[in-house]
Amino acid sequence: MELGLIHLPYLRGIIAAALEEDVGSGDVTSEGIFTGKETGKAVATAKAELVCAGLEVFRETFRALDDGIAITTLVGDGQEVGRGNVLAEVEGRILSILAAERTALNFLQRLCGIATLTRRYVKAVEGTGARIIDTRKTVPGLRLLDKYAVRCGGGYNHRFALYDGVLIKDNHIAAAGGIAAAVALLKGRVPHTLKIEVEVGDLGGLEEAIRAGADVVMLDNMEIEAMAEAVRMAKGRVLLEASGNMTLERVRAVAETGVDFISVGALTHSAAAADISLTIVP
Amino acid sequence: MELGLIHLPYLRGIIAAALEEDVGSGDVTSEGIFTGKETGKAVATAKAELVCAGLEVFRETFRALDDGIAITTLVGDGQEVGRGNVLAEVEGRILSILAAERTALNFLQRLCGIATLTRRYVKAVEGTGARIIDTRKTVPGLRLLDKYAVRCGGGYNHRFALYDGVLIKDNHIAAAGGIAAAVALLKGRVPHTLKIEVEVGDLGGLEEAIRAGADVVMLDNMEIEAMAEAVRMAKGRVLLEASGNMTLERVRAVAETGVDFISVGALTHSAAAADISLTIVP
Amino acid sequence: MELGLIHLPYLRGIIAAALEEDVGSGDVTSEGIFTGKETGKAVATAKAELVCAGLEVFRETFRALDDGIAITTLVGDGQEVGRGNVLAEVEGRILSILAAERTALNFLQRLCGIATLTRRYVKAVEGTGARIIDTRKTVPGLRLLDKYAVRCGGGYNHRFALYDGVLIKDNHIAAAGGIAAAVALLKGRVPHTLKIEVEVGDLGGLEEAIRAGADVVMLDNMEIEAMAEAVRMAKGRVLLEASGNMTLERVRAVAETGVDFISVGALTHSAAAADISLTIVP
Amino acid sequence: MELGLIHLPYLRGIIAAALEEDVGSGDVTSEGIFTGKETGKAVATAKAELVCAGLEVFRETFRALDDGIAITTLVGDGQEVGRGNVLAEVEGRILSILAAERTALNFLQRLCGIATLTRRYVKAVEGTGARIIDTRKTVPGLRLLDKYAVRCGGGYNHRFALYDGVLIKDNHIAAAGGIAAAVALLKGRVPHTLKIEVEVGDLGGLEEAIRAGADVVMLDNMEIEAMAEAVRMAKGRVLLEASGNMTLERVRAVAETGVDFISVGALTHSAAAADISLTIVP
Amino acid sequence: MELGLIHLPYLRGIIAAALEEDVGSGDVTSEGIFTGKETGKAVATAKAELVCAGLEVFRETFRALDDGIAITTLVGDGQEVGRGNVLAEVEGRILSILAAERTALNFLQRLCGIATLTRRYVKAVEGTGARIIDTRKTVPGLRLLDKYAVRCGGGYNHRFALYDGVLIKDNHIAAAGGIAAAVALLKGRVPHTLKIEVEVGDLGGLEEAIRAGADVVMLDNMEIEAMAEAVRMAKGRVLLEASGNMTLERVRAVAETGVDFISVGALTHSAAAADISLTIVP
Amino acid sequence: MELGLIHLPYLRGIIAAALEEDVGSGDVTSEGIFTGKETGKAVATAKAELVCAGLEVFRETFRALDDGIAITTLVGDGQEVGRGNVLAEVEGRILSILAAERTALNFLQRLCGIATLTRRYVKAVEGTGARIIDTRKTVPGLRLLDKYAVRCGGGYNHRFALYDGVLIKDNHIAAAGGIAAAVALLKGRVPHTLKIEVEVGDLGGLEEAIRAGADVVMLDNMEIEAMAEAVRMAKGRVLLEASGNMTLERVRAVAETGVDFISVGALTHSAAAADISLTIVP
Repeated sequence: MELGLIHLPYLRGIIAAALEEDVGSGDVTSEGIFTGKETGKAVATAKAELVCAGLEVFRETFRALDDGIAITTLVGDGQEVGRGNVLAEVEGRILSILAAERTALNFLQRLCGIATLTRRYVKAVEGTGARIIDTRKTVPGLRLLDKYAVRCGGGYNHRFALYDGVLIKDNHIAAAGGIAAAVALLKGRVPHTLKIEVEVGDLGGLEEAIRAGADVVMLDNMEIEAMAEAVRMAKGRVLLEASGNMTLERVRAVAETGVDFISVGALTHSAAAADISLTIVP
Repeated sequence: MELGLIHLPYLRGIIAAALEEDVGSGDVTSEGIFTGKETGKAVATAKAELVCAGLEVFRETFRALDDGIAITTLVGDGQEVGRGNVLAEVEGRILSILAAERTALNFLQRLCGIATLTRRYVKAVEGTGARIIDTRKTVPGLRLLDKYAVRCGGGYNHRFALYDGVLIKDNHIAAAGGIAAAVALLKGRVPHTLKIEVEVGDLGGLEEAIRAGADVVMLDNMEIEAMAEAVRMAKGRVLLEASGNMTLERVRAVAETGVDFISVGALTHSAAAADISLTIVP
Repeated sequence: MELGLIHLPYLRGIIAAALEEDVGSGDVTSEGIFTGKETGKAVATAKAELVCAGLEVFRETFRALDDGIAITTLVGDGQEVGRGNVLAEVEGRILSILAAERTALNFLQRLCGIATLTRRYVKAVEGTGARIIDTRKTVPGLRLLDKYAVRCGGGYNHRFALYDGVLIKDNHIAAAGGIAAAVALLKGRVPHTLKIEVEVGDLGGLEEAIRAGADVVMLDNMEIEAMAEAVRMAKGRVLLEASGNMTLERVRAVAETGVDFISVGALTHSAAAADISLTIVP
Repeated sequence: MELGLIHLPYLRGIIAAALEEDVGSGDVTSEGIFTGKETGKAVATAKAELVCAGLEVFRETFRALDDGIAITTLVGDGQEVGRGNVLAEVEGRILSILAAERTALNFLQRLCGIATLTRRYVKAVEGTGARIIDTRKTVPGLRLLDKYAVRCGGGYNHRFALYDGVLIKDNHIAAAGGIAAAVALLKGRVPHTLKIEVEVGDLGGLEEAIRAGADVVMLDNMEIEAMAEAVRMAKGRVLLEASGNMTLERVRAVAETGVDFISVGALTHSAAAADISLTIVP
Repeated sequence: MELGLIHLPYLRGIIAAALEEDVGSGDVTSEGIFTGKETGKAVATAKAELVCAGLEVFRETFRALDDGIAITTLVGDGQEVGRGNVLAEVEGRILSILAAERTALNFLQRLCGIATLTRRYVKAVEGTGARIIDTRKTVPGLRLLDKYAVRCGGGYNHRFALYDGVLIKDNHIAAAGGIAAAVALLKGRVPHTLKIEVEVGDLGGLEEAIRAGADVVMLDNMEIEAMAEAVRMAKGRVLLEASGNMTLERVRAVAETGVDFISVGALTHSAAAADISLTIVP
Repeated sequence: MELGLIHLPYLRGIIAAALEEDVGSGDVTSEGIFTGKETGKAVATAKAELVCAGLEVFRETFRALDDGIAITTLVGDGQEVGRGNVLAEVEGRILSILAAERTALNFLQRLCGIATLTRRYVKAVEGTGARIIDTRKTVPGLRLLDKYAVRCGGGYNHRFALYDGVLIKDNHIAAAGGIAAAVALLKGRVPHTLKIEVEVGDLGGLEEAIRAGADVVMLDNMEIEAMAEAVRMAKGRVLLEASGNMTLERVRAVAETGVDFISVGALTHSAAAADISLTIVP
C-alpha cells in the first residue's frame, strides 16, 4: 500500500498547517528543558488491534519539523497489527520528537481508525463480490488522506469531489423535468470521461434511469428485498450502488443481493481513533 | 454560545480550503442542470437527538461560496435538539446551495457530534464539581473548532497547544533530573503568565510535585482509589486533573473522588458525526 | 453563458496574483499624477471581430483593486461582436482604472482569443455531429479560465486534469502488458464514476480496446480514411475521439468521418490574443 | 542564457500551483497501473525548428513532484534547434514522469514559442541598431517567465510592471494639463532612479516632450515616414520607442528609421506554442 | 496624504498576518469577560508631539477583525499633532476593539515614529533644495508602509527594491573592470526605463562616472568639503546623492553643499515608536 | 543561545516574504553584471559594540535564495562583540550574496539592536533579582524574532500574544463589575494552565487583586515609593510586574523596590538598528 509520491506536495501543506496549529509560538515546556542537542529514540506502539494507515504521514510530520529525524517503519500500510506491536521507531533530537509527537499521532490514529473500521466492513462482505466504497463525508481539509485510509482498509473510493463524478439527485431531476431529461442534459455537457450516475429511491426510478441511459444507479435507503429485485431488473445493464444506513450488522445482507458497490459514510465520518502511543525509550 | 467574531479570519481560511477540496474545478452535475439563476430554500434537520455546535461555520460555508445566500438559524449552539427539529434554513441560488451542501454538513455534523458526546460526559458528572476538559487530540487543522464544540457541549478547554500551557511529563523529568529540577527550570524560563502542570503516575510523584511548587498535577492512568487518596493528600494545594481511560461508565466515579478536572481525549478523537440532513423544500 | 458563481473564490486568487504582479509596489506614473479622487469612465472596445469570453473576469479584476468601480457589460460571453463594438463600460476612480487596466485586458484578450478560435473550429464542423473539445494544453495557472473560454466559443471540455478522466496511453499499455490488462486493472481501481478511455494508433488497437471493454477510444494521429473505417468498426460500441494535427483546413473532413469528438490543442496553446482597447472617455 | 538563481523561489510557487491544477487529487490512470517503483527514461524532442527557452522550468517542474528525477539538458536556452533534436532527457520513477509531463511541457512549449517568435523579429531588424522589446501584455501569473523567454529569443525587456518605469500617456497628460506639467509633476515625485517616458501620437507631441525634459518618447502608431522625421527631430536628445502594429512584415522598415526600440506585444500575447513531445524510451 | 487605494490588497495581507500573530487561538481575557454584544467607543490620543502616518492602516486593522467597527479620523496623515490631541475614534463591539487594539497601535506607532523623525530631517534642510530620501533599510515585510511614512514626513523615496533602480557599487565595478565598463554593460541590459546610478567614494570616481554617462552619482561617506567640490565638478551633468552618517546635526551642512538628495537609513531602521494610547471612553 | 529548530518553518515564511519584497522581479544591477557563476566571500562586521542576535536568521536568508551558500558564524547569539569584530563569513555565488545582502542585514541589524538595548537594561538591574521582560509592542509580523532577540540580550518574555496569558485591565474590570468579579469569571473560563494577572494603578487595586486570588499583579505607571510599598503589602502572595515609563535611568530604582518583573516596551518598539556591514573580500 503506497501513499504515492504525487501526494507529497499536498501532504506537506496539510502537515505544515497542523504543526503551526500545535507548535505555533513554541513548545514552552520542552524548550525550557531541552537544549536541542539531546538525541534519543521513541517507539510508536499499537495499544489495540488495528489496520495500519498513514505511516508516511507520520514520517513526514516529524521530518517537516526537523529533517534530521529518521523514522523506521516496522509494518506497512494495509497490514493488520496486534496489541503491543511496534509500528515505527523515531530517532533524532528529543526536542523535535516531543514537539511533533501529538500532531504525528493525531494523523496516524485517525487514519488507522478509518482503515480498521473499513476492514471490518470489507470482511463482513467477503466473498460476495460487492465492494465497500467511501463517500464525501470526510473531515474538511483531509479528504485525500481519509480516502487513502479507506483503501488501506481494503475499501474502494467513490468520487473524490464534485468534479470527478456525476451524481444526479432529486433536485436535479426535478429541475430538469425527469430522469430522462436530466441524463440527456448532462450527457451533452459534462466531459465525456465521466459516467452518469442517478440516485433513485424505488424500482420505478431504477427503470427510468436504465431507460435514460444511466451508467450507474444508486439505490438510496431501499429495503434488502427491493435491492435484490433491483439487481434482477438491472440484468447488468447498469452498475448498482447501495447507500444509506449501512451498519456492520446489515451490510452482509445487502452485499448478498448482488449490488456492485456499498457506500458507507461512517468509514470516514464516525471512525474512532486507533489507540497508539509514542514512548521515548531509555 | 458564540463562536466569537475574532475567529472569523481563521474560520474563513479553513472554509476556503474545504470548499476548494470539494468543489475544485466545479460541480459537474449541478452546473449541467442549473443555470445559476434558480433560487430556492433548503432546511437542515436533525435526524437524531443532538447538541448543536457550529451553526456559524455552517452559515459561513454557504456564504463563502455565494454571499447572496441567507441562512436563518432556528436554534442556538449549545442547545439540545430532538429528532426532526429544523436547525436552519438556507435560501438563495440552488446551484450555490448544492455546491456548498456537503462541505457545510461535514463541518456541522462533526461539531454537533463532538458537542453531543461532550454533553453526555458533562451530565454524567453533574453535581460533582469536576469539570470535563478536552485534550490536544483533535483533527489536524480543525483544533479551534473542535475545542469550540467541546464548550458548546458544556465542557471546558485544556491548553490549546504547546505554547499556552506547561505540562511536564516523564521525558522532561528524566532529562532535568527529577520533578523538582524540572519545575525550577521551567519557572525560570517560561512566561510568568503560565502555570506549571506536572504529570505523575503515582502518589509519590504527586508528593514531589507539590513540594516542587507545581500549580497543577495530572494524575495519569491511576485507579479510582489512588485518585481519592491524591485528593486527600493535595488538600487543595494544587489543582488535580484526572486523565486516561475515561469511559462514560467510569467517569462519574472519577469525578466523585474530588478531582478538579477530567480530561477526555475521546471527545474530539472519536466522536461519531451527528445525523443531519439538508433537503430542498419544494 | 455564465462563468458560474462557484468559480469566484478560485478566480479571486488568480486575479490577486495577477494584480500583485503588475501593480506590486505601485503605479508610479498614475500615483504621481492623480490624487485618487478623480473619477471617470472608460470603454472597452473590440478592434476586430471576436467572440466574447471573460467579461466576469474583467469585472472582478477592477473590483479586486477597488470595489467602488462599476462595470456595465453591453454584450455577453459567447456572443459574436464586430469591430468597434463596445464590450463594457468601467466607471470609478481613474487611478484604480488605470492601475487595473493592463491586467484586466490581459485576461480578457486571452479569453476572447480562445473563444474566437474555438468558434472557427465549431463552425467548420457545423452539421456533422462531431464536437470540438479542448485538451490539457492550457497555460499553467489558468486552466479553468481557458476551458471556460472554449465553452464560450461553442466547444466542449475534455477532462480538466489527471483526476477526472482515465486515459490509457502507450506507456500504461506496455506496463500493464496489453490493452486488455490495462483496462481491467483500471476498472478495478478507479472510482466507478469514471469512464475508461484508451488511446490507439491504428485499427488493431481500436479492436482490442473495444474487446477490452473501453468506453471511449482516442484515435491518435490517424488518417482520415482510417478514422472513417474506425467509425464503421466501432458500430457505436465505444465513443470515438479524433486527435492530432487538427488544423482548420482538415477538421471538417475529420468530422465527416463520424467521430464523436475532435480534440484540438491549439484552442488553448496557440490562440492569438483578441484585439481590445480600453479608453477613458472625456 | 541563465534564468538566474534568484528566480527560484518565485518559480517554485508557480510550478506548485500548476502541478496542483493538473495533478490535484491524483493521476487516476497512472496510479492505477504503476506502483511507484518502476523507473525509466523519457526524451523531450523538438518536432519543429525552435529557439529554446525554459529548460530550467521544465527541470524544476519534474523535481517539484519528485526530487529523485534527474534531467539532462542537451541544449541551452537561447539556442536554435532543428526538428528531431533532443532537448532533454528525464530519468526516474515513471509514475512521477507521467504525472508531471503535461505541466512541464505546457511551460516549455509556451516559453519556446515566445523565444522562437522573438528570434524572428530580432533577425528581421538585424544590423539596424534597433532593439526588439516586449510589453506588459503577458499571461497573468507568468510575466517573469514570459519576459525571460523574450531575452532567450534575443529581445530586450521593457519595464516589468507599473512600478519600475514611468510611462506618461494621454490620460496623465490631460489630467496634468499638458506634457510639460505631467513631466514636471513626475520628476518631483517618482524615485530618482526612474527615467521619464512620454507616449505621443505625432511630431508635435514629440517636440513638447523633448522640451519638457523627457528621457524617452514612445511614438505610438505612427507612420514610417513620421517616425523617420521623429528621429531627425530628436537628434539623440531622447531615446525613441516605436510602438503599435508591429508585424514581421513591417518591422524592418520601422527599424530602418533609426528608432532605438521597437516594442511588440505579440511576442507574449500571441505566440503559438512550440511543438515538443515527451516520449518514454524503451 | 493618501495611502492610495491600490495598496489595499497588499495591506490586507500584512494586517491578516499581524492579527493572526497577536490574536491566534483567541483573546482569552476579553473572551472570558465580554459576550461579543457590548459596544463602546475608544479614542486614540497622541501622548507626545508627532507627525501622523498610517491612519488608514489603523482603520483597516480593526475592520479586518470586525467590519462592524467604525473609525473616525480627526486628523490626516502628514499632519503635525500636539500632545493630547485625539487622532481617531473607534466605535463598535468592545470585544473586537480590545482584540485588535495592540496590533493596530503597533502599526500606527511605528509609522508615526518614522514620519516624525523624517519631518525633523526635512525641517533641518528647509530652504536648501536638497531632498531627504529613504533607503532599503526597512523592517522586513513592511517596506511599502515604512516608505509611505517617509512621504508623510515630507521625505521622498529612493528605489523601493532591487528591481526598480540601478545602483552600481564597488563589487559591480570591480567585476566589470571599471566604472565605464559597468555603466556600458548595464545600459545594454536593463530596461530603458531605469536610470544608471553609480556609487563613488571620491572625486576621481565622480569624474569617471560622469564620463561613463551615469545619470546619478551617490557620494558615499564623503566629507562636506569634498561634496561641495563634487557639486562644482558635476555642473548639473548628473544628479548627486549624499549618503552615509547623516545625523540631524550634520544634515544641514550637507544640504548646503548643493547636492540633490540626502539618503538617511535611520528614518526607517532606527525611528523610535511614537507614543499613542487607545482608551475606551466611559 | 539557540533559536530552536522548531521555529524553522515559521522563519522560512517570513524570510521568503522579505526576499520577495526586496528582490521581486530581479536585482537588475547585479544580474546585468554577473553571470551567476562567479563565487566569492563576504564578511559581516560589527561597526560598533553590540550583542549578537539573529545569526541563524541571517544564515537562512542567504540560503533561502541559494542553498549553495555557506555561512560560517564566528560568534554566537547572546555574545557581546566589539567594534571591528567579524560576526560571520558568507561564501558562494556573488550574485546570490548581493541579492540577499540587504534583506539579511535588515534582519540582523534589527535583532542585534534589540538584544543590545535589552542587555543595557539587564545590566542596569544586575544583582537586584528583578527580571527585564518584553511586551507585545513588537513589529507586526516579526514577534517571535523580536522576542527571541530579547532573550539573547538577557531579558525574559512576557506572554507572546493574547492567547497565552490572562491580563485583566480597566475595561475588563469595569465590565465585570470589579476586580473580584473579573478574576472569578476568568478562573471559570480560561484553560487551567494560565495564571491570572491583573493590572492595577494603585495600592487599593493591589489589595483587591490579592484578595480576589490573582496570581500576578501589574503595577501600572506607579511611583517608585508606591511600588516599594506594594512589595511590602504583597508579602510574596502574588508576583509583581512593574510597567510604564521604564527608562534606563529609572529602571534600577524600580528594580530595587523588590518587584519581580519590569516590562519595557522600548526593547522592541524603539531599539535602534545595530551598525553592521557586509563587504566582499578580494
